[in-house]
Amino acid sequence: MGCADGGTSIDLWRAVLKRLRSRCPSRPIELIYTDLPRNDFSQLFRTIHGQAGIHSYLEGIDNVFVLASANSFHRQIVPSSTLHLGFSSTASHYISAVPTQVSGHVHMVGAKGKERDAFKAQGARDWERMLLARASELRPGGRLCLFNFGIDEEGRYLGCTGGVSMFDAFRDLWSGLADARVITNEERAGAVFPQHYRTVAEFTAPFRNTASPVYAAGLRLEHVETRVVRCPYAVAFAAHGDAAKFAQGYIPTLRSWSEPVFAAALSSARTLAQRLAILDEFYGRYESLVAGSPEGHGMDYVHVYLVIRKAE
Amino acid sequence: MGCADGGTSIDLWRAVLKRLRSRCPSRPIELIYTDLPRNDFSQLFRTIHGQAGIHSYLEGIDNVFVLASANSFHRQIVPSSTLHLGFSSTASHYISAVPTQVSGHVHMVGAKGKERDAFKAQGARDWERMLLARASELRPGGRLCLFNFGIDEEGRYLGCTGGVSMFDAFRDLWSGLADARVITNEERAGAVFPQHYRTVAEFTAPFRNTASPVYAAGLRLEHVETRVVRCPYAVAFAAHGDAAKFAQGYIPTLRSWSEPVFAAALSSARTLAQRLAILDEFYGRYESLVAGSPEGHGMDYVHVYLVIRKAE
Repeated sequence: MGCADGGTSIDLWRAVLKRLRSRCPSRPIELIYTDLPRNDFSQLFRTIHGQAGIHSYLEGIDNVFVLASANSFHRQIVPSSTLHLGFSSTASHYISAVPTQVSGHVHMVGAKGKERDAFKAQGARDWERMLLARASELRPGGRLCLFNFGIDEEGRYLGCTGGVSMFDAFRDLWSGLADARVITNEERAGAVFPQHYRTVAEFTAPFRNTASPVYAAGLRLEHVETRVVRCPYAVAFAAHGDAAKFAQGYIPTLRSWSEPVFAAALSSARTLAQRLAILDEFYGRYESLVAGSPEGHGMDYVHVYLVIRKAE
Repeated sequence: MGCADGGTSIDLWRAVLKRLRSRCPSRPIELIYTDLPRNDFSQLFRTIHGQAGIHSYLEGIDNVFVLASANSFHRQIVPSSTLHLGFSSTASHYISAVPTQVSGHVHMVGAKGKERDAFKAQGARDWERMLLARASELRPGGRLCLFNFGIDEEGRYLGCTGGVSMFDAFRDLWSGLADARVITNEERAGAVFPQHYRTVAEFTAPFRNTASPVYAAGLRLEHVETRVVRCPYAVAFAAHGDAAKFAQGYIPTLRSWSEPVFAAALSSARTLAQRLAILDEFYGRYESLVAGSPEGHGMDYVHVYLVIRKAE
C-alpha cells in the first residue's frame, strides 16, 4: 500500500518471492500494488514488466500475477478474507483530512494544545479505519507488516533526531517569505502537511485495549520496534565535507515530497509562473541555508515497525 | 482485456454490475482491467474512481473491487481457475509479431499468397495462445465474450463495407508520399499494421476441431455472429452534408489509432520535428481527400461476436 512506481521495493519483493517459491513451488501468487489514482501506474507496470531499465523479479519467478489498485488504504482494497500478507512502508502518516491549521508551524510536530489533540484524534480515527479495513481483508492467520513514520521513545521523528529540525527549517523559511512580503499571511497559514506522526503508544493503543473495534476484529500485535535510518546525504557530507554539494543533493529530495504542500498554500489568483517563482525562491533559500551552515541538517528516517496478525 | 482508459466501457459495466448485484446482493466482485504497460492506467483509475468527469459505477454498487493488470492477453493474467467472465472488445486483432511486410500495402487485408498465409498462421498461433491462456484462467462453467474485428461472410471488414476502402486509402496516400520523395521507399515498405483480421472460419476453427488443444482444454463455442456498426461520422455527414466538417471530425479518429504504425516506419535518422511534419502532411492529405470527395468514406466497424464456455 503506497507503492509509487514500485522501484524502491523491487529487490525486497524479489527476495520475498524467491523464499516463498522455495517453500511453495507451485502456488500461484497474486501481488497487488496500491496507491492513489494520481499515481503513475504506467511507470509502475513498466518497472514490474522489466521495461524501465530496472531488473524485475517477474522473469525468474513463475506463476506470479501482478495487479494494481487505486483504492485508498483507508478503505477496503480486496474482498474480505482473501489477503495473506499486507505490506506498507512510509505511507500511513498521510491522513485523510487536515483537522486544523497549525498556529505558527507547517506540520503537526509543531502543534500544541487543542491543535495537537485534533491531529491525534484524526490520526487515531484514520489508524483505526485503516486497521479495520485490513482486518476485513485478512484471512485468519494472515499478517500485516506496517513500517510507518512516527515519533520514537526519545521524541525523535523524520528530520529531527538531534540536529537542525527539518520541519522547523521549513517553518522558518516559509514564514520568512511572509515577513519579506513574498507571500501573504493567509498563504503563510495555509501550508500544513496532511500528516500525523503517531507515537508508539498511539500505534499500539488499539491492540492494548481488548474492548477496541480493532481487537474485536481479530487483529493482534506481534511485534513493535523503532529504528532510525541515517540520512544518506548527511552521511555522504560527513565523508566528503563539501557543503554546496550536500545542499544541491539534499534539497531536491526534500522538494520532491514537500512541494505539493507549499504549492497548495499559494493563492490560486497567482499565475502559475508566479507560484513556480515563489517555490524556487523557497527551496533556493533552504539550499543557501544548508550550503552556508551545513552542520546538523539531514533527514534521518524514524520508523515504527509493526507486525500484526489476524487471529485464527 | 484491452481496456484503454475505461471510458468507453463504463456504461456497459454499470449495467452488468447492477444486474449482477440484483441477482447476488452480497457477493464481492473483482473487476480486473488489462492493457499493455504503456497504457495510461492513471487515467483508467481516475475514470473508475470518478475523478475524470465521467459518472462511474463505483458510487452506486457496493463490494466491487477494481484492479488492473498490464499482462498481455497473449499470456495468463490471473491464477488458474479463478476467472468467471472474460471480456474483450476490439482488441484481439493485434498480433504479437508482424510475420512479414506486405508487398504494395500497409495492412494484411491487402496481402496475397504466401504473405497472406503468413498472417493467417500468425493469427492462428496468437488466437490459440490467447484462448489457451483463458482456458487456464476460467473456472468450469465460466464464459468468455470476445467481440473482435474480423472479416464477415461477405468479405467486409473495418472501413471496407462497399464504399472507399480505408486501408486502401492509407496505402495510396502513404505510397504517394514516397512517389513525391517525402519518404523513402524503405519507409514506404516499413508501414505494416501489427494486426490480423480473422474470418469467421478462422475464429471458429479451434472449436470445430475436437482434436485441437483449445477443445481439449475445455473451451466450447456457444455463439457466433457478425455485425456491422455504421461509422458515426459518415452517418452524421449523410445528415448535415458538410464535407469539410466530416473530414475534420473523421481524420483525427483514424489518426488516434493508426499514427503509431506510420510513425514507426519513419527513419530514426530523422529529427522528431521532421517526423511530425511528415505525419501532419500524411493526415492532411487524407483530410483533403475526404473533404474533396466525401462520398463512400467512413470507418464502419465489422465485428465477429463470440461467446465461449469452459466445460464443467
